[in-house]
Amino acid sequence: MWNENRLTELLNIKYPIIQAGMAGGVTTPELVAAVSNSGALGTIGAGYLSPDKTRAIITQVKALTDKPFAVNLFVPEPLNVDKTQIDKSKAALHPMYKELGIDNLPEIDVENLNMFDEQIKVIIDMKVPICSFTFGVPHMDVMKQLKSHGIKTIGTATTVSEAQINAEKGMDAVVMQGSEAGGHRGSFDDGFHEAMIGTMALVPQAADAVDIPVIAAGGINDGRGVIASLILGAAGGQIGTAFLTTFESGTNVNHQSSILNSVETDTIMTSAFSGKPARGIRNNFTDKMTGMEDSFAPYPIQHMLTSIIRLEAGVQNNPELMALWSGQNIRSNKKQSAQCLIEAIVSDAERIRADLK
Amino acid sequence: MWNENRLTELLNIKYPIIQAGMAGGVTTPELVAAVSNSGALGTIGAGYLSPDKTRAIITQVKALTDKPFAVNLFVPEPLNVDKTQIDKSKAALHPMYKELGIDNLPEIDVENLNMFDEQIKVIIDMKVPICSFTFGVPHMDVMKQLKSHGIKTIGTATTVSEAQINAEKGMDAVVMQGSEAGGHRGSFDDGFHEAMIGTMALVPQAADAVDIPVIAAGGINDGRGVIASLILGAAGGQIGTAFLTTFESGTNVNHQSSILNSVETDTIMTSAFSGKPARGIRNNFTDKMTGMEDSFAPYPIQHMLTSIIRLEAGVQNNPELMALWSGQNIRSNKKQSAQCLIEAIVSDAERIRADLK
Repeated sequence: MWNENRLTELLNIKYPIIQAGMAGGVTTPELVAAVSNSGALGTIGAGYLSPDKTRAIITQVKALTDKPFAVNLFVPEPLNVDKTQIDKSKAALHPMYKELGIDNLPEIDVENLNMFDEQIKVIIDMKVPICSFTFGVPHMDVMKQLKSHGIKTIGTATTVSEAQINAEKGMDAVVMQGSEAGGHRGSFDDGFHEAMIGTMALVPQAADAVDIPVIAAGGINDGRGVIASLILGAAGGQIGTAFLTTFESGTNVNHQSSILNSVETDTIMTSAFSGKPARGIRNNFTDKMTGMEDSFAPYPIQHMLTSIIRLEAGVQNNPELMALWSGQNIRSNKKQSAQCLIEAIVSDAERIRADLK
Repeated sequence: MWNENRLTELLNIKYPIIQAGMAGGVTTPELVAAVSNSGALGTIGAGYLSPDKTRAIITQVKALTDKPFAVNLFVPEPLNVDKTQIDKSKAALHPMYKELGIDNLPEIDVENLNMFDEQIKVIIDMKVPICSFTFGVPHMDVMKQLKSHGIKTIGTATTVSEAQINAEKGMDAVVMQGSEAGGHRGSFDDGFHEAMIGTMALVPQAADAVDIPVIAAGGINDGRGVIASLILGAAGGQIGTAFLTTFESGTNVNHQSSILNSVETDTIMTSAFSGKPARGIRNNFTDKMTGMEDSFAPYPIQHMLTSIIRLEAGVQNNPELMALWSGQNIRSNKKQSAQCLIEAIVSDAERIRADLK
């Protein structure tokens, strides 16, 4: 019945709980280490990090924990950069640049968008125990390289067929990301709309279809969610939003306040921040960009064009122009340490198990 | 821990499992009675039935079971019928009318759209043990009348605040309908988009917020889903799609075949069939109506304008022009008796519980 041993043994962790590899500065070394030191799996969200910064944060995490941790990378896809589309996106974003007093727009170095291969070298060089992926499965030679160095791999899927692709390509485990999840959709093979499957429907169908351990994600933020995931056939649960308001998290304080003051109906899906659909709390930025989808540049160009807005909005304490990533299970978020959060999840889960007996 | 007694005692049923009150001829007397006779709660989907037909089917169910069953009604809302909008909808539907050889369009008797009050009289007169509602909470006098006759009431909510409205207005229990669910969204207070909350996120937040028993719905089709619902804080689970392919169901055979041959990515949300958003398997009808949302007449006018299409498409064995309602947990659907389905769910659930010990 209990699949959790398949995950805890694979990853050499105590609890079948993974802290999601949220990108954008949220996963500080302190957060990742605190999670891993508490018996769950901490994850560095390195999606947007340069190889040098990836190396630096891994070094910092290693100084804070000797427990296993993961690094999450964004798998690159072929990109045709269209100058006209970039100009169109800049024009659409112009009112926000102006509102924040941003004069110098970022130069986009299209030749150096792909940092993935260099990041993989860092992962191997630094002997990172676990590497997880969003937006697809890397080339077979990358998978083979990681395997030959004993690095465990975790993929992300949003449909059963994406889970099967992960399994076929040799991924050791796969996160099944339900539509409740905050941040970016990991969809890479199925289209956005058809891949918006709720966790309750997604997990059992995936667990029935693949032999590798599946990890439930989306809508989980406490012991109930973790145990329910195990019941549905998962070997563990991945939690993101609940960690955004931990003391150790690098989440901007305005973002944290928004989460603490929001409810489940406050999030929307938008591609306006990065060019890929992601779930966050609705604000002026998402409202202004609704209906302007034609102006969005493809990922990661749109991300680069808006990151200066989000950065400056953070400096100016203006949550209305920030990306307020959040999932749909948000009402019980609170300020606490990562260790307290994990202890609460685990004691909740143990109480549920005890009551079942 | 286990809330299920709150539901089984309230409804006087053996298992905390409800067969959803799917409208449109699916819930035959044989299906409802088989479900109730198997220890779960069968529900007559009377949303579209006239008071006379509501009375007739209740009589038939009573002849087949002495166990509790429910009748599900659609709560009416104020309707401004706009002749221009009706003509616009007819024009948009014209290619489908033509394809099926339909010459005589239905006359819409706008004066007699509201059958609700008469249905309530039938419910009371026939001493129906349980009355459930979709699309809102009835007026207080209706709630009081039902209560004074000892009839238990179950509402439907798609957000925590809708659950709170149900609780405040005296509903005995509330179905929390997650975004995975097939058929109509029950949303009545929050907007469609913000109320698309996945079951995994919706149930625990609702269970924390209201004192009445909550029933999980959306993505549940086996014992894993029922037990996971209980873990998340629900007192039971409601199942719809899995019953659509039972022998006793009145589901059109083409609809059944579509379900048996579809996967979780095949459903979409559309208001094209009824004027209210609902989840079903994508087909030519939904494709043709995508982008024509401006032409849709309000519920239930759009329902009336398309029902002749769906009926004739059924006669002509053309699933491409039918409403193929389905939820997102669809891969394990099979042809079987309702009793077999319930026995499988219960034995699965009991195995899970035994393994937990």
